[in-house]
Amino acid sequence: MAENEFVVTPWEVSGEIDYEKLITRFGTQKIDDALKERIKKDFGELHFMIERDLIFSHRDLIEYLEAFEKKEPIYLYTGRGPSGKIHLGHMIPLMFTKWLQDMTGATLLFQFTDDEKFLFKDKLSRKETLDYAYENMLDVIALGFKPENTKFIIDTQNAKTMYPLSLEVAKKLTLSTAKAVFGFENHTNVGSIYFTSMQTVPAMLPTIIEGKPTRVLIPCAIDQDPHFRVTRDIIPKLGYPKPALIHSKMMPSLRVAGKMSASDEESAIYTTDSEETVNKKVARAFTGGRATLEEQKKLGGNPDICSVCAYFKFFFEPNTQKLEKRLNAYRKGKVMDGENKQELAKRINKFLKQHQAKREKARSKLKKYLFKDIVV
Amino acid sequence: MAENEFVVTPWEVSGEIDYEKLITRFGTQKIDDALKERIKKDFGELHFMIERDLIFSHRDLIEYLEAFEKKEPIYLYTGRGPSGKIHLGHMIPLMFTKWLQDMTGATLLFQFTDDEKFLFKDKLSRKETLDYAYENMLDVIALGFKPENTKFIIDTQNAKTMYPLSLEVAKKLTLSTAKAVFGFENHTNVGSIYFTSMQTVPAMLPTIIEGKPTRVLIPCAIDQDPHFRVTRDIIPKLGYPKPALIHSKMMPSLRVAGKMSASDEESAIYTTDSEETVNKKVARAFTGGRATLEEQKKLGGNPDICSVCAYFKFFFEPNTQKLEKRLNAYRKGKVMDGENKQELAKRINKFLKQHQAKREKARSKLKKYLFKDIVV
Repeated sequence: MAENEFVVTPWEVSGEIDYEKLITRFGTQKIDDALKERIKKDFGELHFMIERDLIFSHRDLIEYLEAFEKKEPIYLYTGRGPSGKIHLGHMIPLMFTKWLQDMTGATLLFQFTDDEKFLFKDKLSRKETLDYAYENMLDVIALGFKPENTKFIIDTQNAKTMYPLSLEVAKKLTLSTAKAVFGFENHTNVGSIYFTSMQTVPAMLPTIIEGKPTRVLIPCAIDQDPHFRVTRDIIPKLGYPKPALIHSKMMPSLRVAGKMSASDEESAIYTTDSEETVNKKVARAFTGGRATLEEQKKLGGNPDICSVCAYFKFFFEPNTQKLEKRLNAYRKGKVMDGENKQELAKRINKFLKQHQAKREKARSKLKKYLFKDIVV
Repeated sequence: MAENEFVVTPWEVSGEIDYEKLITRFGTQKIDDALKERIKKDFGELHFMIERDLIFSHRDLIEYLEAFEKKEPIYLYTGRGPSGKIHLGHMIPLMFTKWLQDMTGATLLFQFTDDEKFLFKDKLSRKETLDYAYENMLDVIALGFKPENTKFIIDTQNAKTMYPLSLEVAKKLTLSTAKAVFGFENHTNVGSIYFTSMQTVPAMLPTIIEGKPTRVLIPCAIDQDPHFRVTRDIIPKLGYPKPALIHSKMMPSLRVAGKMSASDEESAIYTTDSEETVNKKVARAFTGGRATLEEQKKLGGNPDICSVCAYFKFFFEPNTQKLEKRLNAYRKGKVMDGENKQELAKRINKFLKQHQAKREKARSKLKKYLFKDIVV
């Protein structure tokens, strides 16, 4: 990999991501000031993640806003590949999705792609990915989603709805297109090649449920975009509107450059981590500090490479003025890593204490969220 | 295609098939005299199709017979791609399957691959293939299968059972293997590439249902063998026994060399054809006759290329002595095409009259045969 190169696919994110370049590479649209204004006008407020360009890119968002403005029925669709526990990096698009739902009142279809994770992860069994799906649901419910307008689809458990519709997509998707979009090779298993057909289905369901062409917005991390390029190419040929997309950046790892990784336990904070674990992980976090305290007081820290600062920015300081103040103080050597870490750990633990309580309460409510198969 | 070349794949059968060569090409075993003796000893009789080498090839049939001899639980698995109406050519493996079930008492899993036909046939919709599946079931029921030990699986309708298990297969099947076995190319749709994973699942179900490794025999036309090469390669790695296979030849077309084709309405006799249609089709059938009656009386006809003779051989003269007598008389110019055709039409119409009555009665019983999804 040449210097400054980076890889962003649904199955690999590596290198230091240049998000401006990614917009060009993927052919998406930047969320510019004019669009931010329109969102603010439509919804009455602007989420801090949009304000800070953590939600930074889109496809056809304007058409979706138009449908909202015209009070047409609109849907949200997001999902989760259940290959492990949920960490704070996963929570970002989820919390943003919750905000979108609060603003629009849209029904949310939430897909758990247990099939995908089974197919792409050598060591995971079907039972493990399914168990993770049910565990991950607790985190989603804990964020405040309501069963009235939030439906959880599990690919294997809702196969009676999902599989027949995925066939419609698969029939229109050639091997050469799948290879071009995802980079599949001869050693790829045939399930992995098929899978994107399943990821497309929830974008079709709103139109089937409503009985008329219905707009869908897909909030997702930018690495999932390739799936929906296939979706957007194929489903209009089947009579469904193209889904709109709104993309988030990836939350950085606590350890090194790159996104949080569910496979490196130390790089992420899980929603089920204890206070002690959080304290330990934050204490060991990679920062923008200098070699010595003295040097840092003199030269200041670098918030741009500091994972602790990133946590404030992405999640734990929703007030943008206060965030700027904190980052400036760090840059000027007025706040040291220790203080920053202590404050971050305190905020994370406060959040997790509440989240974990809601998460346990969610167990008894889970059934109400499960999507009931429909005739397709 | 060079002279004498022929193609036999699940989706294309063309040229004049040399079944001896096909055994070598596919690497299957011939059903020889010793095996015929063993079958006769085990079952107390020998089906005329085995006697006449219309059922001519197998894989691991001996292991299956051993399981039968030891009174272990054994299953049968066969299927049908519902792309149109059932014709007499389709009935051959079905009737043979019925005989196998009568002889063994085995439970039969009968798969309707509506997904396959939707994926491989440009012009067929999902609804059409599903409708054909339900129509085709009537023909199967009319042959006398009982709901107690015959279960109809429809891939899309039983997706909750089928799809999760197909993932296990798909995870073990690489693109390069699928290409090598089936000859897929870059323009092939990704559903077609995935499909063989679904066709494998009924070979796994008996072991799941019985809770222990359970032998399965798959009676099928030889063109389906490639699917089950994949099955036999993969499912032992997943803890299931290799299924045994027993292969039939393809019933010739009424019109030219090659198998009956559901797409050429004139080449086949459908189970729903009227007496008038049967008479017309048989009257126009391709025979082994000579240019003039006189010539035929003098030189005799050629039963080996005669589709009317083939119908007697495959289906409408189960008594082998009587068959030989008829074919000899034809060969010697003692029986003319007109007489043969008249007799064949009479027998077909007699069969169809009864079959059609049973077929209509089957409508009310159909539900009892439908496979109920299980937890997999």
